[in-house]
Amino acid sequence: MTSPVAVPFDVYHEIQEFYARQIHLLGAGDIERWARTFTVDAVFEQNARPDRRFARSAKAVRRGRADIAAAAGGATAQRRDESVVRRYWLGMLTVTAEADGSLRTGYYGALINTLPDAGVDVFLSTHGTDVLVREDDSWQVRHRVIGHDDAPEPAVEATA
Amino acid sequence: MTSPVAVPFDVYHEIQEFYARQIHLLGAGDIERWARTFTVDAVFEQNARPDRRFARSAKAVRRGRADIAAAAGGATAQRRDESVVRRYWLGMLTVTAEADGSLRTGYYGALINTLPDAGVDVFLSTHGTDVLVREDDSWQVRHRVIGHDDAPEPAVEATA
Amino acid sequence: MTSPVAVPFDVYHEIQEFYARQIHLLGAGDIERWARTFTVDAVFEQNARPDRRFARSAKAVRRGRADIAAAAGGATAQRRDESVVRRYWLGMLTVTAEADGSLRTGYYGALINTLPDAGVDVFLSTHGTDVLVREDDSWQVRHRVIGHDDAPEPAVEATA
Repeated sequence: MTSPVAVPFDVYHEIQEFYARQIHLLGAGDIERWARTFTVDAVFEQNARPDRRFARSAKAVRRGRADIAAAAGGATAQRRDESVVRRYWLGMLTVTAEADGSLRTGYYGALINTLPDAGVDVFLSTHGTDVLVREDDSWQVRHRVIGHDDAPEPAVEATA
Repeated sequence: MTSPVAVPFDVYHEIQEFYARQIHLLGAGDIERWARTFTVDAVFEQNARPDRRFARSAKAVRRGRADIAAAAGGATAQRRDESVVRRYWLGMLTVTAEADGSLRTGYYGALINTLPDAGVDVFLSTHGTDVLVREDDSWQVRHRVIGHDDAPEPAVEATA
Repeated sequence: MTSPVAVPFDVYHEIQEFYARQIHLLGAGDIERWARTFTVDAVFEQNARPDRRFARSAKAVRRGRADIAAAAGGATAQRRDESVVRRYWLGMLTVTAEADGSLRTGYYGALINTLPDAGVDVFLSTHGTDVLVREDDSWQVRHRVIGHDDAPEPAVEATA
């Protein structure tokens, strides 16, 4: 097995910008375009506390773009109903290239909620890893694993 | 009308660094040099809650570098009086080029206050857009619109 | 004395990535590899409140890689004991080159704690400066000064 290698700075830049655009689409509630930043067969896993309830009973593991879009759309609609503005921040980004041309990223995420008449709140701190692939002339997420910092770490097998 | 286009990575880098320097100047209370990162005729708009009171009764819309400097200087002085340290974080940056050579940026902002004997507090979460132009061999902000996440979204006309 | 100059974008990129990797090592508790991102004779100073107590009575100023590693290892072990997950965010990065080939960086830092059954908390806001040198084909920190935003500013001499 080949070790991952650091990417050239133009690729790092592309990925940094990719995440900024992806996050703005989610922040703006444009779920249709946001979902197209995932491959059709993408898997989006969240390692959350056992008692975490996702909006509209979405599962912690979402398989395929349609399922991923439905979960995000449900969460977005719920926040709109509750007049909560959520900003997702991604930082501390690392990017390495795999032998097959895919990229593997690592990052921290912080979710900042603004609540009507209740101020601002860091709702959740997370750490994530993505596998990104180049499809249709742009990068897409093929596999995302988000670890919630308030959840126990899973056995490695559980998220592989 | 021509669509905005993504900028090359050296420009993205320049803008990323521009914002870091601009923010450090504000954080250090160097209002004079900070103000010179805006054009002489710049407009700085804040879409805030109707009941938000800016330091020294500054208006939400500031027209021209002198007015922009006065508002920031007042806020800086007030925080010094109150022994509050405020850090402005900017992230999730997107940069696109307009046909006339100006740049349009989008970003999230978070204001973190440290209060004497009262800990740390995310004071405000925002989303911003700037128009940047190249003047005197450096980038300057010609138009800034900051939306406070605790304020109702304005009609588009109000901030155009 | 020569003024510091801005660095080319490939160097800025390298440093941005350096910090991301450094922080992930600390976040993962890999103190051995984290410590190797400092020179053997590095100095790590924290300008903290007089009443701030570091884990296992570490001093605010740590001299040499072994001392730096011991302090970080103690803090990591203490958080593990307390089941606290801490994420260190670094942002608003500036990088300038000195005449001797070293780099001087400036940045903000935010420490986000996730506590068992007590939610998420911005524990500390800081501002830092590093001197980075190229050793063994990679960047290393030779001198780090972290100012805690809840501490009074030291006289300039104290951190020079």
